[in-house]
Amino acid sequence: MGNEMRTEQQTQAADRYFMMLAIEQAKRGLYTTRPNPAVGCVLVKDGHIVGQGFHPKAGQGHAEVYALAEAGDAAIGATAYVTLEPCSHTGRTPPCAKALIAARVARVVVAGLDPNPQVSGRGVAMLEAAGIKVTVGVMTEQAEALNTGFLKAMRTQMPYVRLKIATSLDGRTAMADGSSKWITSEDARQDVQHLRARSGAIITGSQTVIADDPALTVRSHRLGVDLSEIPAPKVVVLDRRARLTPSADAPYQLCRRDATVFWRTDDLTALLRDLVQSHQCHDVLVEAGAQVAGSFLAQGLVDELIVYQAPCLLGSAARPMVTYHPLSLAEQLRFDCVSHERIGSDMKLVFKPV
Amino acid sequence: MGNEMRTEQQTQAADRYFMMLAIEQAKRGLYTTRPNPAVGCVLVKDGHIVGQGFHPKAGQGHAEVYALAEAGDAAIGATAYVTLEPCSHTGRTPPCAKALIAARVARVVVAGLDPNPQVSGRGVAMLEAAGIKVTVGVMTEQAEALNTGFLKAMRTQMPYVRLKIATSLDGRTAMADGSSKWITSEDARQDVQHLRARSGAIITGSQTVIADDPALTVRSHRLGVDLSEIPAPKVVVLDRRARLTPSADAPYQLCRRDATVFWRTDDLTALLRDLVQSHQCHDVLVEAGAQVAGSFLAQGLVDELIVYQAPCLLGSAARPMVTYHPLSLAEQLRFDCVSHERIGSDMKLVFKPV
Repeated sequence: MGNEMRTEQQTQAADRYFMMLAIEQAKRGLYTTRPNPAVGCVLVKDGHIVGQGFHPKAGQGHAEVYALAEAGDAAIGATAYVTLEPCSHTGRTPPCAKALIAARVARVVVAGLDPNPQVSGRGVAMLEAAGIKVTVGVMTEQAEALNTGFLKAMRTQMPYVRLKIATSLDGRTAMADGSSKWITSEDARQDVQHLRARSGAIITGSQTVIADDPALTVRSHRLGVDLSEIPAPKVVVLDRRARLTPSADAPYQLCRRDATVFWRTDDLTALLRDLVQSHQCHDVLVEAGAQVAGSFLAQGLVDELIVYQAPCLLGSAARPMVTYHPLSLAEQLRFDCVSHERIGSDMKLVFKPV
Repeated sequence: MGNEMRTEQQTQAADRYFMMLAIEQAKRGLYTTRPNPAVGCVLVKDGHIVGQGFHPKAGQGHAEVYALAEAGDAAIGATAYVTLEPCSHTGRTPPCAKALIAARVARVVVAGLDPNPQVSGRGVAMLEAAGIKVTVGVMTEQAEALNTGFLKAMRTQMPYVRLKIATSLDGRTAMADGSSKWITSEDARQDVQHLRARSGAIITGSQTVIADDPALTVRSHRLGVDLSEIPAPKVVVLDRRARLTPSADAPYQLCRRDATVFWRTDDLTALLRDLVQSHQCHDVLVEAGAQVAGSFLAQGLVDELIVYQAPCLLGSAARPMVTYHPLSLAEQLRFDCVSHERIGSDMKLVFKPV
């Protein structure tokens, strides 16, 4: 009995360890797999890794395929650690559950089920029907953190919305005359590149286009991935008053790009739903001014608020970070701070709505 | 040579270790020794602690006296670790340098010199003249952090000024109608008690008195010290327009207290200088509204800015945290963030001016 319990504990510790390695594999695809989720797989036999892989890009092989190819016959009797339930349907690639069965693995450990209605437990059922032992729920939270957008979209048909705001310590984004370049540090601006690189779409406002003429591109060479491998995020400009016209000789760079989408109504929920349904954008980043930020926040459409806060005071006449008008203290917007860290000279604070 | 070097390194490591313990001793007096500095002492012989002590209160014995009394004859040939240079003058107690000489310690390790003009190297000289080996400069920064106010006042005749602001994430302290109780959490308000407990004076503004009728007392039982041992900070109300009148039946509690000082001019530098010269207040805490905070900041009188930031947005019509009007981005006030931590649901951010 004592021995069995110890063995069970050892198995759980080993499961967590190897799942952690599978998550590290999955991370390698974080910026490139869109609209697919980032998934990693590690194959372990007799305590040794015999194969590992990750899903690099939509249309290319899934994580399990690469790991099985590396393992060859060593996969027979091995344990497969996969960060997301192996797929059971034939998409652009054959079902991974079948590949694991064919390779005769003995056990599959899955971080979490795939809420994709085409999978959703069927992958696990297929494995179990073939006599493979399946364990679900190891390091689920850490694995799901890589695919917040994909998972939310599969469950709710709405994207995961990150709102990024760069502000001074006194909650100002620019002087009264609009001058603001640059309040936050180069390091903070580099960090924003990571947010863009994992976003299917970036939403901005016409006012920001007119004031700042931003490029909103993924352009950092410090992302650890070849830039050409990262699908360009779709850029959406909120322009309900039709202030901007797309054309080859427009004065703003976003207006000159064919791919830019102009959203002419003020129904933000419809926009977000459309980004999932028509464009498979599961992670959306809002980079705009106080007005747009206030609209998303007031309508409860923000899943994560990311504030880059520069250690400076711009003064009480400077521009506010969020245009929002609660009628009383009870109507304030409240959050939980989920992380805080220094980025260069600035603070990066991440919040989730209460 | 190799052996000598190793011995030297071992001595340095031991010095740092025992000085750290002496600093822990000193901390026990942090809230009670005003206007004296917090000082700790550890006596070590053959690698063992034979005596330790701290200065508990002005008028009572210095740290060295308590440590020597505990050690008795074991002090002969011991090494004394003291967080501040032993005094050389007869004040309310006889000079500690003399006591260490009389006890026949072999060596004295001092974190830093005492800038008090009555000491200032004379303590060390007295010890050396008696044939005692003296080492100065071990863990200096950590030791000096306990006595920032005392050390600054001795060096410049100005106090160390901490400005505390409680604010929302969007830099607001209250709704437009003034309602604000409470934006920050109970834990953050408890933390402010630590700031008050180490302050010789607390400065507020007449507007804050009228709006909030604050008590500005040290009243927390979580400070680790008997409240009756903590000298009450002097409370100064800035009231250049003479809006408040002290009297036993005044409508505000600070106006009913005899000890409250009303400062009727707008010369803040003169006030700070007076707090040091006439009242021996070396640590000053400013707890006031946006106007007073802005005045101290704009005049460069703040040594440390402590922001308790609640994870909420009060909106763009709410009251600003600092009334300050830079004419351009170049005139913004910039800081270095020296620490960041969660306190309850809030962030505590500490800044020093650049």
